[in-house]
Amino acid sequence: MRAAIFRSGEIVVDTLPDPAPSAGQVLVKTLACGICGSDLHARTHAHHMVRMSKLAGRAPMDLSRDVVFGHEFCCEIIDHGPGAQKRFRTGTRVCSVPALASASGPSGIGYSNDNVGGYAELMLLSEALLLEVPNGLSAEHAALTEPLAVGVHAVAKANVQGGEVPLVIGCGPVGLAVIAALKLKGLHPIIAADYSPTRRALAAKLGADVVIDPAQNGPFKAWAEHAAMSAEEKAARPPRAAWLPALKPALIFECVGVPGMIQQVFEGAPRDARIVVVGVCMESDRAEPMLGIMKELNVQYVLGYTPDEFAASLRLIAEGTVDAASLITGKVGLDGVAGAFSELGNPERHTKIIVEPWR
Amino acid sequence: MRAAIFRSGEIVVDTLPDPAPSAGQVLVKTLACGICGSDLHARTHAHHMVRMSKLAGRAPMDLSRDVVFGHEFCCEIIDHGPGAQKRFRTGTRVCSVPALASASGPSGIGYSNDNVGGYAELMLLSEALLLEVPNGLSAEHAALTEPLAVGVHAVAKANVQGGEVPLVIGCGPVGLAVIAALKLKGLHPIIAADYSPTRRALAAKLGADVVIDPAQNGPFKAWAEHAAMSAEEKAARPPRAAWLPALKPALIFECVGVPGMIQQVFEGAPRDARIVVVGVCMESDRAEPMLGIMKELNVQYVLGYTPDEFAASLRLIAEGTVDAASLITGKVGLDGVAGAFSELGNPERHTKIIVEPWR
Repeated sequence: MRAAIFRSGEIVVDTLPDPAPSAGQVLVKTLACGICGSDLHARTHAHHMVRMSKLAGRAPMDLSRDVVFGHEFCCEIIDHGPGAQKRFRTGTRVCSVPALASASGPSGIGYSNDNVGGYAELMLLSEALLLEVPNGLSAEHAALTEPLAVGVHAVAKANVQGGEVPLVIGCGPVGLAVIAALKLKGLHPIIAADYSPTRRALAAKLGADVVIDPAQNGPFKAWAEHAAMSAEEKAARPPRAAWLPALKPALIFECVGVPGMIQQVFEGAPRDARIVVVGVCMESDRAEPMLGIMKELNVQYVLGYTPDEFAASLRLIAEGTVDAASLITGKVGLDGVAGAFSELGNPERHTKIIVEPWR
Repeated sequence: MRAAIFRSGEIVVDTLPDPAPSAGQVLVKTLACGICGSDLHARTHAHHMVRMSKLAGRAPMDLSRDVVFGHEFCCEIIDHGPGAQKRFRTGTRVCSVPALASASGPSGIGYSNDNVGGYAELMLLSEALLLEVPNGLSAEHAALTEPLAVGVHAVAKANVQGGEVPLVIGCGPVGLAVIAALKLKGLHPIIAADYSPTRRALAAKLGADVVIDPAQNGPFKAWAEHAAMSAEEKAARPPRAAWLPALKPALIFECVGVPGMIQQVFEGAPRDARIVVVGVCMESDRAEPMLGIMKELNVQYVLGYTPDEFAASLRLIAEGTVDAASLITGKVGLDGVAGAFSELGNPERHTKIIVEPWR
């Protein structure tokens, strides 16, 4: 089969042996697979990613061997492994969390030497993890299940109490998914900030009530204008809090994932802010702990999603509750993957590019 | 009056004008004032502290002017300002949160050019914030209210659900206060780590069930040995969690406050750990966000305490619930403050030195 392979730091198209399904697995044709910002970071910072995986006790990639990225996929079953239950028959379109099940735990798909990701014509999936794509939902839209699940999970981990005013910093696919998930929670107003006009328009489309251009207006200043307490809320405060700024609780989602962002948030955040770090920064980062201390900030780092959150995300797209389709700005075949990695650097031009390996 | 003054980066003893109480204030004689690790840090990193205060929107010290440190004090009322309610008469021994009340909010005592701290013979306090020291409690023990309140607050902010296994890293006064507060919460076993045998002995005395010498045994490895789930807890996990290490939730208190500690905790912490940063690191710090992300860590930075927590801490000491007395390892007059700052660098020799300005 053909695949776009991460090899020696570059994305190259080459032929790999067709995978053969083991017990409990299905062989699938990759219909559509989104390119994730983490894939771009992983290409640039692969060695750091390997070091961090080791430190975190995860199985790291061996960078001297081939890796096929791609963890946002929708596929079609073409064969069942030995002893399969055949819950879904050949031809069924399916999604799955990007992992293979085994007795010793899940093994990730997409940053692995052994488990080929979605930038390949064929993949293996675990039958037990398959979700059928509802009839009528296109493969490219079903492939957006994974990035939407990232937003759904981030908002779940934010432990919303009600009454918070959210600020989403960065409106790439991760930020947009967070906005969509916040809208479902009914938290308003949702404030979102991005330098790109296109991304701001998308943010508004997905549910942001207020969109900020950080070049024009500081996001935290804009946030504070929209987070003013009502007269009743002010009156309900204990007397000793009367001198504090009368602001509703802040819930800040860092969805950029480059060094310096957490420090920017530490500088801008109001006291007692809760910060959810959703952007995956793959470099070392410097921050001032004393700012966190003086403001008593809380930082929740998040990654991935639960199987339930993933399944719920597929339903949200299928039922049209979340307009994920508007994220897609391009489609390429395997020969276009390397170019797409460069193109995605321009937020005006692209948000989500879908790889269609069969093209 | 005489005072030990922070002037041009050094601690010097000099004479300052006697303060005069305004409306709502009392003039007090400082009976006892603990030397806090933050004072040592502030002396070394004063310029950084000023920069951070500005960034955090707090009133910074002017380092070209005198500052009198000291925010862990017990005092005796010697005069009342104009129009005072005289809730407590002259001669009453009192504690107070280290702040003066005003219409525009509290103004800190101890890191201020205007509000003299406890390393001086006389101070001003706000009548409204005074707590009477219960009869029979010595001034030096009452002065430990403040550091104990730091531990009580840190544990309150940890949002204990029950069932967590706490790990306290660093058993200086802050770590010891956290251990005492954890014991009150009934969380067991309390694991504590410190390189100093004296500090480990104190940790055990204040409530640690297991004390670790990091030179002999990794604190996180030791923690894991004591955090194993019971057979029932293991059986109650959802099937998809069966492959994860069968460990109870981790609640880690960082009580050292030097650069590199948060990264060490990020490296050692298990998945989903909650980390409370109580040590006040006054320098920039570098950490790997990706470790936080891969493990979905939560970091709660804390500072200070509420007035209620402060009052509760005084009661805990007065009623003998917390054996704060064992923290005191030395007493000095004003002329001994500069030397005590150096002496406190040796954890074998000293934990808490009390300044008695009247000596």
